[in-house]
Amino acid sequence: MLRAGMIRRVAGGIYTYMPLGLRAVRKIEAIVREEMNRAGALELLMPAVQPAELWQESQRWTQYGPELLRLKDRHQRDFVIGPTHEEVVTDIARKEIKSYRQMPVTFYQIQTKFRDEIRPRFGVMRGREFIMKDAYSFDPDKAGLERSYQQMYEAYGRIFKRLGLVFRAVAADNGSIGGSGSHEFHVIADTGEDAIAYCPASDYAANVEAADALPLIEQRSEPQAALTKVATPDAEKCEKVAALLGVSLEHTVKSIVLAIDANVEVDASPLTPHGSGGSTPQIWLLLLRGDHTLNEVKLGKLPGATGYRLASEAEIIECFGARPGYLGPIGTPKPVKVFADRTVAKMSDFIVGANEAGFHLTGVNWGRDLPEPVVADLRNVVAGDPSPDGQGALAICRGIEVGHVFQLGTRYSQALGATYLDESGKAQPMVMGCYGIGISRILGAAIEQNFDARGIIWPEAMAPFEVVICPIGYERSEMVRMAAQGVYAKLLELGIDVILDDRGERPGVMFADWELIGVPHRLVISERGLKESQFEYQGRRDAQPTLVAVTAAPELISAKIRAAFEY
Amino acid sequence: MLRAGMIRRVAGGIYTYMPLGLRAVRKIEAIVREEMNRAGALELLMPAVQPAELWQESQRWTQYGPELLRLKDRHQRDFVIGPTHEEVVTDIARKEIKSYRQMPVTFYQIQTKFRDEIRPRFGVMRGREFIMKDAYSFDPDKAGLERSYQQMYEAYGRIFKRLGLVFRAVAADNGSIGGSGSHEFHVIADTGEDAIAYCPASDYAANVEAADALPLIEQRSEPQAALTKVATPDAEKCEKVAALLGVSLEHTVKSIVLAIDANVEVDASPLTPHGSGGSTPQIWLLLLRGDHTLNEVKLGKLPGATGYRLASEAEIIECFGARPGYLGPIGTPKPVKVFADRTVAKMSDFIVGANEAGFHLTGVNWGRDLPEPVVADLRNVVAGDPSPDGQGALAICRGIEVGHVFQLGTRYSQALGATYLDESGKAQPMVMGCYGIGISRILGAAIEQNFDARGIIWPEAMAPFEVVICPIGYERSEMVRMAAQGVYAKLLELGIDVILDDRGERPGVMFADWELIGVPHRLVISERGLKESQFEYQGRRDAQPTLVAVTAAPELISAKIRAAFEY
Repeated sequence: MLRAGMIRRVAGGIYTYMPLGLRAVRKIEAIVREEMNRAGALELLMPAVQPAELWQESQRWTQYGPELLRLKDRHQRDFVIGPTHEEVVTDIARKEIKSYRQMPVTFYQIQTKFRDEIRPRFGVMRGREFIMKDAYSFDPDKAGLERSYQQMYEAYGRIFKRLGLVFRAVAADNGSIGGSGSHEFHVIADTGEDAIAYCPASDYAANVEAADALPLIEQRSEPQAALTKVATPDAEKCEKVAALLGVSLEHTVKSIVLAIDANVEVDASPLTPHGSGGSTPQIWLLLLRGDHTLNEVKLGKLPGATGYRLASEAEIIECFGARPGYLGPIGTPKPVKVFADRTVAKMSDFIVGANEAGFHLTGVNWGRDLPEPVVADLRNVVAGDPSPDGQGALAICRGIEVGHVFQLGTRYSQALGATYLDESGKAQPMVMGCYGIGISRILGAAIEQNFDARGIIWPEAMAPFEVVICPIGYERSEMVRMAAQGVYAKLLELGIDVILDDRGERPGVMFADWELIGVPHRLVISERGLKESQFEYQGRRDAQPTLVAVTAAPELISAKIRAAFEY
Repeated sequence: MLRAGMIRRVAGGIYTYMPLGLRAVRKIEAIVREEMNRAGALELLMPAVQPAELWQESQRWTQYGPELLRLKDRHQRDFVIGPTHEEVVTDIARKEIKSYRQMPVTFYQIQTKFRDEIRPRFGVMRGREFIMKDAYSFDPDKAGLERSYQQMYEAYGRIFKRLGLVFRAVAADNGSIGGSGSHEFHVIADTGEDAIAYCPASDYAANVEAADALPLIEQRSEPQAALTKVATPDAEKCEKVAALLGVSLEHTVKSIVLAIDANVEVDASPLTPHGSGGSTPQIWLLLLRGDHTLNEVKLGKLPGATGYRLASEAEIIECFGARPGYLGPIGTPKPVKVFADRTVAKMSDFIVGANEAGFHLTGVNWGRDLPEPVVADLRNVVAGDPSPDGQGALAICRGIEVGHVFQLGTRYSQALGATYLDESGKAQPMVMGCYGIGISRILGAAIEQNFDARGIIWPEAMAPFEVVICPIGYERSEMVRMAAQGVYAKLLELGIDVILDDRGERPGVMFADWELIGVPHRLVISERGLKESQFEYQGRRDAQPTLVAVTAAPELISAKIRAAFEY
């Protein structure tokens, strides 16, 4: 974007949008605004500078980190530059909304926000000053919130579709804000920060951290092999064991040993022989198939897992009688709580450590050789896993988060006392949702998804211009000048966003500039072509130009652009 | 605006624009944007948060008062929230513009700014956070600047005309910024802060402080009366002298005595017998016609007037031998420097104090009774004065400043080193102009110009809605509902910005709400009217409603709105 002259850096994470960049921003804004209005949301504009009092009421004055830019006015009163507007909008709602009859209502704004990132990076993708569309819904109850949420969810889908982006709505982990439903909208791009599991055959998508990992074995087979202790010298990893024994990695099971410190433990399960001794930690053994990896988000949600840590080598030796690399669930000197991943729980004739250095056990079978385990979803999904919606196999891709819809609940309405009178005249807290789109971030994400070695390839909907006319010899040739101005006027007339490059640059410079800028359609006008009554058309993704009759060119381009806007 | 629900206060001088208010803002912005683009200006968007370094380069980091909101980011680096963008845009220009071939160029933006007013007041008219259009032109020389300035001046005229406002472009005093040409655009309103002198027969307008006061007498008459000392007991004011002597106030001349302290005096005029004594002040006597008032801005511009002050009573008695109330230019014990206003200099047979308590001189004539004075424009213009452009008589009105165009020159380009290479390859500072429009201020000014006891009367161009449909019995009557929805759809189809009040309120409440909000056209639909196939139309300024045939209503309203947009 810097090279293409779309933005200029003013300070770290702070940019000026130059004319070309701003044109793209405005096109994105217009689509977002149309779809918000269509969804019945009301546009307003809240201030960037907000009084600290509101943030004190919500407790975020102290909870929010140094990303919150705090400042004092000339009277030494505290203010913030808003990174988000839950407080201000809830203040508006508590003053404006008195009765259930005034809901549902959704307010939105498109506004410049500020978040004092410690390390701003990726240009406009993680800047400090950025443009955001934020919306807030107010409903009398949870059912209303779900309807409002659904409307915004659908509007977001229309927005990203209209913008011409490949995207996924991803079920998201709620994090710490504490609502009950949340989706992130990701633009798919190899350079994305987030890994996303999705089903190409359906709408299913989730952050890899949040995606359900189904068992890869439908039905556990009957034991075929006898339990056998085999020597596996220097084979502390499943890969080495499998290679040594000449079996596939899918027959091995890895052991991960956790310690749950008693003072953090809040769960009092009857299955826990340890933990009663006060400071003695409880030891957990997690079993995953050799080719799988542990998902710590899922682990953290297991009852009783609060405050888990990896066990120390001393703790492991005390419990298992062996050092890491040869551990397993069978014959531990002290009892441990065993959790098997869903897939491991369906395995038979598998291989685990023998709790003796240099040895593993093969032909291990649940029920026969060891008790049935506690079964849990413990692993990260991998490509090829069945989709949780049963519609096919999962694929993994990377994405850039550009939107987020979130069921807030009553977090802010309770803190700020935003109540309404219900049908029986009783005061109730409003039930809120919040919905964000990073307008300036979309610019960066669209480019990460659409570029080549020559530069940006804008989707038509947000291209600074849809068409560029490149006349060769503009200053020299009257014929070229007339033709260029003629087709320019004709395209304008057809409602096409066209620019005529009248700088008189050499063709190479002109073409390189516009390919870098990423205008999706190009029409080249030359004397040579005009002698044959032809222009040269080239789409930004086309390998070669196409000759097109002068008279047919406007309609050809118009048709291509109309096609790009069909959704 | 608060009562009409257009804005909500968040903190002192900080407001949320509610949906109705924001609609008006967006309409103003759209017109401003169209006219800026038409004038060839390029839109960009600079950041609100600006690094202190740029303000240090321009020296305004120290020169700007506490209106400049300063803050530190998490790394303790200094920033400001921009009240204006000369520094940022000059930084852009010095990086982008290398050659005279790249000029002229004018950049503009529409953006939220912040000025930490000590006493924010008048709602959005003098808020702290406000929306502004600011533009900056860059030219290679003064002649170019004047062309760019003229283009912006004309664009501003079109903008305010299209907005439907009565306005004046007023020649302004440059103040302290130090350019050489400047106009303010004022919306005319009785409550305006500024007094404006204008010529109803021409385009001439100027701040009263800046308006040229021409002599009210074309040719000095020959003396008719003899110089006579008359007793005027208790007549220290011209009004009393005129009454006592039975002449009009226009025959009297008032004396104002100034002291110019020597240490501040920079002018070394041969006319100054005083002032050589180091600390002895020079005494000036200003003569104005009895019915005129002193203009201190003009006084301040007299050569040598730097550091003037009113003379003390002791200084007056020492120079004039009399106390204030009976002073005059004739027979002073010590010499004083006499300045006559242009009108006084043309008077004959006039009356001044005799420098003796209780006495005045009548029949005073220049040349005969005292030497010719230094002549200067010293007074404020009054209604009826000849317009300086010779096109008629001046009128005085009050105005609200909503726009300002300003020839900056090289103030910022020199400070920030924004140079270009001229045709001979020599580095030259760019010559700048700056051009502001207070978008949010226009809202307030439009209302100050257009209101009555019932509320706002919006000009069509910025009305939140052009038409409101008020159905009586909307929830009760199928017939009314059908008709309301039908005419609503028809008006939308005609491209009219219409709202249907479907709240089901009583007529009185409905009418009062929409009159307060100020929608310019109203269509009332009732069962009674429908039985006669009639709607009731009322313009916001109409005293009475008019009956209109159901079938004719859409076209009638459309015609009225088209007429309002003709300019």
